[in-house]
Amino acid sequence: MCEANAYLVREDGSEELLLKAVDKLTIDGDTVYLVDVFGRQERLRARVRSLALVDHKILLERTETP
Amino acid sequence: MCEANAYLVREDGSEELLLKAVDKLTIDGDTVYLVDVFGRQERLRARVRSLALVDHKILLERTETP
Repeated sequence: MCEANAYLVREDGSEELLLKAVDKLTIDGDTVYLVDVFGRQERLRARVRSLALVDHKILLERTETP
Repeated sequence: MCEANAYLVREDGSEELLLKAVDKLTIDGDTVYLVDVFGRQERLRARVRSLALVDHKILLERTETP
């Protein structure tokens, strides 16, 4: 399976695991929707910073509130 | 290998293949940088619309110019 783990990058640069085995990610405005291979869902105000698919890694960062 | 193919979604909804076997994707402002497993690179003004990793699919859409 080619899912990836989604991490939230904190301001200090450390990474917090949000959801493992993510299959689908959808962006709608400043909201990121994640769905893992088991159908579990997460939603957060964030943006995608980077993907490293061979390393199974999705990095997200919080959207600053204006 | 768990790379994905990156497509640009046109205004009519059709999908144009941009780069196969993408390993890394990085977003910097309104620019998306893609690197495939062979080190080939693409750069375009776009945003990520969605990922479907089990289907090996990354969908991007052009950033509207202001």
